[in-house]
Amino acid sequence: MNFASDNTAGAHPEILAAMARANEGHQPSYGVDRWSSEMTAALSKWFGAEVQVFPVATGGAANALALSQLSPNWGAVFCLAGSHIDVDECGAPEFYTGGAKLVPLGRSGGLMTPEDLNETLKRFPRGVVHHVQPSAVSITNANECGLVYRPDQVKALAEITHGAGMKFHMDGARLANALATLGCTPGELTWQAGVDVLSLGFTKNGAVAAEAVVFFDKALAENFLYRRKRGGHLFSKSRFLAAQFVAMLEDGLWLRSAKAANGAAGALAAAFTAAGFPPAYPTEANEVFVRLPKALGDRLSAAGAAFYPWEDEAGETPMYRFVCSFATTAGEVETFKDCLKL
Amino acid sequence: MNFASDNTAGAHPEILAAMARANEGHQPSYGVDRWSSEMTAALSKWFGAEVQVFPVATGGAANALALSQLSPNWGAVFCLAGSHIDVDECGAPEFYTGGAKLVPLGRSGGLMTPEDLNETLKRFPRGVVHHVQPSAVSITNANECGLVYRPDQVKALAEITHGAGMKFHMDGARLANALATLGCTPGELTWQAGVDVLSLGFTKNGAVAAEAVVFFDKALAENFLYRRKRGGHLFSKSRFLAAQFVAMLEDGLWLRSAKAANGAAGALAAAFTAAGFPPAYPTEANEVFVRLPKALGDRLSAAGAAFYPWEDEAGETPMYRFVCSFATTAGEVETFKDCLKL
Amino acid sequence: MNFASDNTAGAHPEILAAMARANEGHQPSYGVDRWSSEMTAALSKWFGAEVQVFPVATGGAANALALSQLSPNWGAVFCLAGSHIDVDECGAPEFYTGGAKLVPLGRSGGLMTPEDLNETLKRFPRGVVHHVQPSAVSITNANECGLVYRPDQVKALAEITHGAGMKFHMDGARLANALATLGCTPGELTWQAGVDVLSLGFTKNGAVAAEAVVFFDKALAENFLYRRKRGGHLFSKSRFLAAQFVAMLEDGLWLRSAKAANGAAGALAAAFTAAGFPPAYPTEANEVFVRLPKALGDRLSAAGAAFYPWEDEAGETPMYRFVCSFATTAGEVETFKDCLKL
Amino acid sequence: MNFASDNTAGAHPEILAAMARANEGHQPSYGVDRWSSEMTAALSKWFGAEVQVFPVATGGAANALALSQLSPNWGAVFCLAGSHIDVDECGAPEFYTGGAKLVPLGRSGGLMTPEDLNETLKRFPRGVVHHVQPSAVSITNANECGLVYRPDQVKALAEITHGAGMKFHMDGARLANALATLGCTPGELTWQAGVDVLSLGFTKNGAVAAEAVVFFDKALAENFLYRRKRGGHLFSKSRFLAAQFVAMLEDGLWLRSAKAANGAAGALAAAFTAAGFPPAYPTEANEVFVRLPKALGDRLSAAGAAFYPWEDEAGETPMYRFVCSFATTAGEVETFKDCLKL
Repeated sequence: MNFASDNTAGAHPEILAAMARANEGHQPSYGVDRWSSEMTAALSKWFGAEVQVFPVATGGAANALALSQLSPNWGAVFCLAGSHIDVDECGAPEFYTGGAKLVPLGRSGGLMTPEDLNETLKRFPRGVVHHVQPSAVSITNANECGLVYRPDQVKALAEITHGAGMKFHMDGARLANALATLGCTPGELTWQAGVDVLSLGFTKNGAVAAEAVVFFDKALAENFLYRRKRGGHLFSKSRFLAAQFVAMLEDGLWLRSAKAANGAAGALAAAFTAAGFPPAYPTEANEVFVRLPKALGDRLSAAGAAFYPWEDEAGETPMYRFVCSFATTAGEVETFKDCLKL
Repeated sequence: MNFASDNTAGAHPEILAAMARANEGHQPSYGVDRWSSEMTAALSKWFGAEVQVFPVATGGAANALALSQLSPNWGAVFCLAGSHIDVDECGAPEFYTGGAKLVPLGRSGGLMTPEDLNETLKRFPRGVVHHVQPSAVSITNANECGLVYRPDQVKALAEITHGAGMKFHMDGARLANALATLGCTPGELTWQAGVDVLSLGFTKNGAVAAEAVVFFDKALAENFLYRRKRGGHLFSKSRFLAAQFVAMLEDGLWLRSAKAANGAAGALAAAFTAAGFPPAYPTEANEVFVRLPKALGDRLSAAGAAFYPWEDEAGETPMYRFVCSFATTAGEVETFKDCLKL
Repeated sequence: MNFASDNTAGAHPEILAAMARANEGHQPSYGVDRWSSEMTAALSKWFGAEVQVFPVATGGAANALALSQLSPNWGAVFCLAGSHIDVDECGAPEFYTGGAKLVPLGRSGGLMTPEDLNETLKRFPRGVVHHVQPSAVSITNANECGLVYRPDQVKALAEITHGAGMKFHMDGARLANALATLGCTPGELTWQAGVDVLSLGFTKNGAVAAEAVVFFDKALAENFLYRRKRGGHLFSKSRFLAAQFVAMLEDGLWLRSAKAANGAAGALAAAFTAAGFPPAYPTEANEVFVRLPKALGDRLSAAGAAFYPWEDEAGETPMYRFVCSFATTAGEVETFKDCLKL
Repeated sequence: MNFASDNTAGAHPEILAAMARANEGHQPSYGVDRWSSEMTAALSKWFGAEVQVFPVATGGAANALALSQLSPNWGAVFCLAGSHIDVDECGAPEFYTGGAKLVPLGRSGGLMTPEDLNETLKRFPRGVVHHVQPSAVSITNANECGLVYRPDQVKALAEITHGAGMKFHMDGARLANALATLGCTPGELTWQAGVDVLSLGFTKNGAVAAEAVVFFDKALAENFLYRRKRGGHLFSKSRFLAAQFVAMLEDGLWLRSAKAANGAAGALAAAFTAAGFPPAYPTEANEVFVRLPKALGDRLSAAGAAFYPWEDEAGETPMYRFVCSFATTAGEVETFKDCLKL
């Protein structure tokens, strides 16, 4: 019963098989191999738009590099309070941007709202030399509390963003989970809703390591290859990254995996509710947040369930996070339910 | 006949098999998994010393991160002219160090000599506020022209380095090739010879992507984990990096692969010499540099051999680089010999 | 009637006279002149401790450079919401630190409290690789809203800071105003209360440009000279900066000027109170913050008074800031009082 | 007899008088004062073109900030070997650019030649991701060895620069000395010859501290104000910087001072030649470089002459540098001549 993270599972066997297939023969290094071309073609088809794709080592790298392309070092990047880019990357965005300022707004546990964004922007008048300049807005979808932005919600934020002369970034470390929930196309949730640059992550969804910066506007990607290289994120044997993206897309693996993870989370949420502990936030993707009496939390741990307490300012009753992945089994969920009943 | 790079080959099948083995079950993410522990144990045994190991995505990242730990942003890092860190990483060391200055010395095509280093250091008196301050010396072994530093040569440079209050770094992207040539132990060529920090690369030697910063002095590694994280180089599913190192070491794969690559390069070098074109530099590892009439170069390309022309200031006759890898076959070498004879 | 800023006044005539005196003859450049020695001696006497002094061009430079000495690029610097370093330096601290994160806490309009600081530190557990690491705390005294920390208040914050393994910085752009209010010694308000590094500013107090980073611990100043040089803040004709510090201290000019500014602000505050508009915050230094009906604000402007509206989240009634300086005359204050009565 | 540097003299009395005049009354801070407007108008007239002017604290800041506007962090900046930006600013250009690479070419003691520049550019093919990208060329005029580029020499280098898609920067810390020698207009030596951005320095020519980044193309200056602010180089009481520029230009002070310095240097050079020690380089501005027997050098020092030995790779006979300034008197020169004869 491992609900610690969608990172603690290994990789889907189809991914490893794809890497083995990509291993045959010589291929040019540094991103001009056959598999990298196939990756770009597959992602362009997936998004319904010609995209520029830059694989990197981690989601943190994807986010930080993407933001460094969107914000000068005197820029401000607006994000939701508690965003991964603000609190969980040890300042990687600041490092890559050369010291741009991340401005958290709204509150963790919800979505960024147009009202919050508009209100915050008032404090950052453009052209005042003493202030950092509004440069980009970044949202995470599905977000850090397992909530999902709908295309129209994305669009509303993107319009404010563009109206203020900024660029719009989406951290899609769990984009597949959001898509599985919404049933919309990848294009509808991204570029058609105003996303300029996407951090696309398939690692949590079953890859070994498959993260990329995806540009929907070719002009915006100019010189990005140098940034990636300087960050040490241009892989020599790039075929092995590319092959993972191809494998995710070619036979619907991404959707099967995301649906499995979301389904398991939904089952957990239902079990918590049935036990009298409805989740703290709606369970819209593959994460369940729930307040439990500490004694119960301890008992679940003792019974062999792995999960994390969650930092939470508000409550006396502690909050816990349970994450499901493609690898979560029906058996694990059932065993957990039984533990919960005891 | 692919002699373009040791990056154009895929991975050794044993590496992929090890990754598949490591895929079983849940493991903690972010470097505290079972395989990461085994990796550190295996490398400590290999080096004959307790080491701190930080896997990263690429050799460029390993070098840049290592140097950022050794040099403040007002520091000078001394390296051989033509070093990879100076000319082939798009300024990654400058990025990670916050703008330290790389000072090339000596000449490409040779080794860094104690005389060159001493002479250069005279220009960088310590304590003059107008000048960057001597911080680190970095050599590549085997180096960019296929030459190998012996332990006593390393030691001579390390002594000057330490005597001047600096730290000593080795770029070991082809360390296995150097070790295969010398027959000495990994410890003898590194920490016993004065190396403080090593960039250890197994990717060119047959891994998918296995690069690491290795510290021989625990104190020197302090806070390095934050640097790596900020660079986006802390992998979530770190087991897949660690397993590659384990696989390289546990059954001598690193040495078998390096010997195969070196052997093939030696055979190429002999063939060139026999054909009247002795290599420009001694062939001490897995790379052969040779001046050929352009017509011959073109003919070899036309016959299906892949290789690169090499930037070279000196000559009228163009220089070419031929690189062998673990995957170079005897058949490839024989076919190439035949082409050469025609 | 200019209450726009203590920057809009020129310099005190004694300062210009001191610069003219310092102009005689040749002096070594780059900080080893006779006047720089006198400055260090005078400041050491003033503080009652041997200090290391590094003059720079601006208060922003002093703050950013000081923080870069105290925080690595993966560090967190805690400051009060609305602090100059967080909102009015266009990200200079982020630039100089290489991207450390400024964490605002508490609320603008008050002082940083031990409770606020302790509460915030809970969110930054040391040693978690995903989080920036607590590095420094910075307070401004007198602060951005004209409030003054007492020595025991400084000490309480410094103790928490040091207890958490951090360093304590004070932005003393208006330190003279705070000292004039408190009547304590410079040492009592700084190093004796736990301040490790001080940004000392005399520009607002009547200098042409006299700002410096002052270290109370010699070891902490190590290598700082290179940081300053790299920032372009080592003046060639450094005597002209140093002479201003000397002039400020040698005949009590700093205290006369600060008392004059504080006194004028006190008179303004009393006038506002008498007119039915008590200041929003206690007037403890040379700044008065007051909510006025917009019509009254407009009328005062029309009457020739210069002052700024102040960003303020809370109220419907607009907030205005009035700043006095050494150059504010009794006549200006009287004229203003008359305007207020109309 | 102080020939140590043109920084060891104080300021011209007319400069201090101008600062005193600028001290009257209140002025807006942060660069929008009356004197700043006059400065821009005066410089625009001087150059015969509408310029954007950004005063900063030092020449090092001007150079580093200018280059940061011209080169991304993955860029290469080409300069003459021994250039101040490469060897005497403790890496300030690397700091401000975020780690761009300075590439020294040619040889100290001469001028940058079109041949040297063209030859070097061959090693930096555009578009290769492993290499830093050609971004800017920077020359110093008058340069570090007292040599002066003529307008047609500047133009030849600027054409190569622009032809390669780069920008052209001039370090004009001693521009006045060059203009005094050439007799051409400021416009002819700068923008008319292809200079895009100029670091203009009047400090060595008799100011207290008057350095500025001057843009001849308004578009190129976009957002530069934020860079300057982040560097801590936006002075609050900016009038005192601006007034120095105005004073330099309004009555020909710049030219009188530069002619005086150049004339004194010429007299020294003639004296050395007469004594059998012709200068090592042509004396084209206010600096004389000459090889002297060490005994003679020591004797001159003992006689009270201040000057510096000069780092010089070539010779056995030591090289010395003698610098004259606006403040060098005929008496000093005569006394020195007498010492030389003994």
